[in-house]
Amino acid sequence: MISSSKTPDVLISEVGPRDGLQSVKATMPTADKFRWIDALVAAGLREIEVCSFVPAKHLPQMADAAEVVRHALTHPGVTVMALVPNARGTEAALKAGVHKVTIPVSASAAHSLANVRRTREEMIEEVRAIVRLRDEIAPGVKIEAGISTAFGCTIQGEVRSEDVVWVASECIAAGAEEAGLSDTTGMANPAQVRRLFNKVRAAIGDKTGAAHMHNTRGLGLANCLAAYDVGVRTFDSSLGGLGGCPYAHGASGNVVTEDLVFMFEAMGINTGVNLEKLLVARAPLMAGLPGEPVYGMTPEAGLPKGWTQAALAG
Amino acid sequence: MISSSKTPDVLISEVGPRDGLQSVKATMPTADKFRWIDALVAAGLREIEVCSFVPAKHLPQMADAAEVVRHALTHPGVTVMALVPNARGTEAALKAGVHKVTIPVSASAAHSLANVRRTREEMIEEVRAIVRLRDEIAPGVKIEAGISTAFGCTIQGEVRSEDVVWVASECIAAGAEEAGLSDTTGMANPAQVRRLFNKVRAAIGDKTGAAHMHNTRGLGLANCLAAYDVGVRTFDSSLGGLGGCPYAHGASGNVVTEDLVFMFEAMGINTGVNLEKLLVARAPLMAGLPGEPVYGMTPEAGLPKGWTQAALAG
Repeated sequence: MISSSKTPDVLISEVGPRDGLQSVKATMPTADKFRWIDALVAAGLREIEVCSFVPAKHLPQMADAAEVVRHALTHPGVTVMALVPNARGTEAALKAGVHKVTIPVSASAAHSLANVRRTREEMIEEVRAIVRLRDEIAPGVKIEAGISTAFGCTIQGEVRSEDVVWVASECIAAGAEEAGLSDTTGMANPAQVRRLFNKVRAAIGDKTGAAHMHNTRGLGLANCLAAYDVGVRTFDSSLGGLGGCPYAHGASGNVVTEDLVFMFEAMGINTGVNLEKLLVARAPLMAGLPGEPVYGMTPEAGLPKGWTQAALAG
Repeated sequence: MISSSKTPDVLISEVGPRDGLQSVKATMPTADKFRWIDALVAAGLREIEVCSFVPAKHLPQMADAAEVVRHALTHPGVTVMALVPNARGTEAALKAGVHKVTIPVSASAAHSLANVRRTREEMIEEVRAIVRLRDEIAPGVKIEAGISTAFGCTIQGEVRSEDVVWVASECIAAGAEEAGLSDTTGMANPAQVRRLFNKVRAAIGDKTGAAHMHNTRGLGLANCLAAYDVGVRTFDSSLGGLGGCPYAHGASGNVVTEDLVFMFEAMGINTGVNLEKLLVARAPLMAGLPGEPVYGMTPEAGLPKGWTQAALAG
């Protein structure tokens, strides 16, 4: 139960302030976002997706994106990430000073058209445009392509693994530093997770990025375990399980950061996150979104008797 | 997604009618129990723990145990199981005609005393007495020892793996056919599940029985996956996640049968259970226990688009 190493074995990439907050109807006040991000940092999280750069008329929850980035940047040692849908959003994100951007690119042709009204090929071109922009104005910034609907699609059903490998490879060829795989629709299973990450790794090697799993059918942690088994070391999750994909009908529920950290730490895998402080970070989330349901089995059950943890942030 | 074999690859042992019903305050009427068991059988479940044989003054929910066993026996091909706390309960179970009994034996000395007010050594003697009784009056009946608190204890904290191996080995030496491992307190993690099942198998070989996991901290399915990875092929679970251990404070929540079957079937592992019919089996459970919370992510999200399943019961 005690992690021996001081360097985390896995990177927990917290997506709540972006993925979570853009999925709920209410808008969290900026000051509450600051307090929540501060609490996440205090718990030891070292990569946080803090916002998305989309027009405020589409997502009023993200109108303060630049301000939130500037606040997050006051924390040394934290990788400040933002989601960007296109080159225009990327320009705003780079100007705000983010360290890393993530752009979703669908492996499903049908989902791509329904979600962003663009083909997969057009989205790969957009990645190329984003890379050019980054090279020009902020060459140190990392670009991740998040391959969405990688494990299945609510519109077209099955998504062939060839399609996932193709989209991931094209995004890397376009200049992205990483391609991660997202179970946007909660259709992944552990056998598929192992197969698909192995196939993607065979194509793009260590440019294989995060596992972004959903808990739609309860398999979120089992799928993270399966991904870990085949060498994945970065995991997206959301405090309180906030968020999911607002475009995929019937799909909801990110993996709960608290439960994910509990699983890894209990296994002796160092996350760098202090679980007790992570539970404390739920308070500003709940204060900033009164009445919004917040999930998590570990917070409900409490930590087991005899729990000890030698965390970085401890 | 389609299981090719007609012989199930894993055995889902449904414990809801025992573990679930004895954990809730309300008593399900006998006729509702019959309807629920019928629906479970119709879905393809082939091992069901239908009741426990304990004095009705302690567990009024189980006052109709013998009647429930007799009803379950009308279904050919179903292994009818009962929990027995001791030799006296075993006698009643054998007289009622069960095919298999399971007796819980704690690996934690503290939990054994708190739960049944007997030492582990006394419980192992009880197993021996049960075996003698079985040999005398119903030699075909199988006896399983369910090693409880195998992964941790809410009273004493850590439970040493040596203790688990010792208790399991002693139960087999006493004449039990199988020893399964129970995460009574929801403290198991996947690394520990793999280690402990490997150690127990090294000691008692193919007499290693079921994985009985709880979802207390959300790790139920991940732990089942870990157990499958090291060769476990029988899994206890409960429809709607009903039940858990009423004696372990803060511990609740069996693995949800619906989610477990979804995970295995999605992986191409044949459970013999028809998932659509399994979802239908929730209706008699809910009708028989009005107002009782019933869990499950797969029932809530529904089956994914394109879901097909070649199930035995289909």
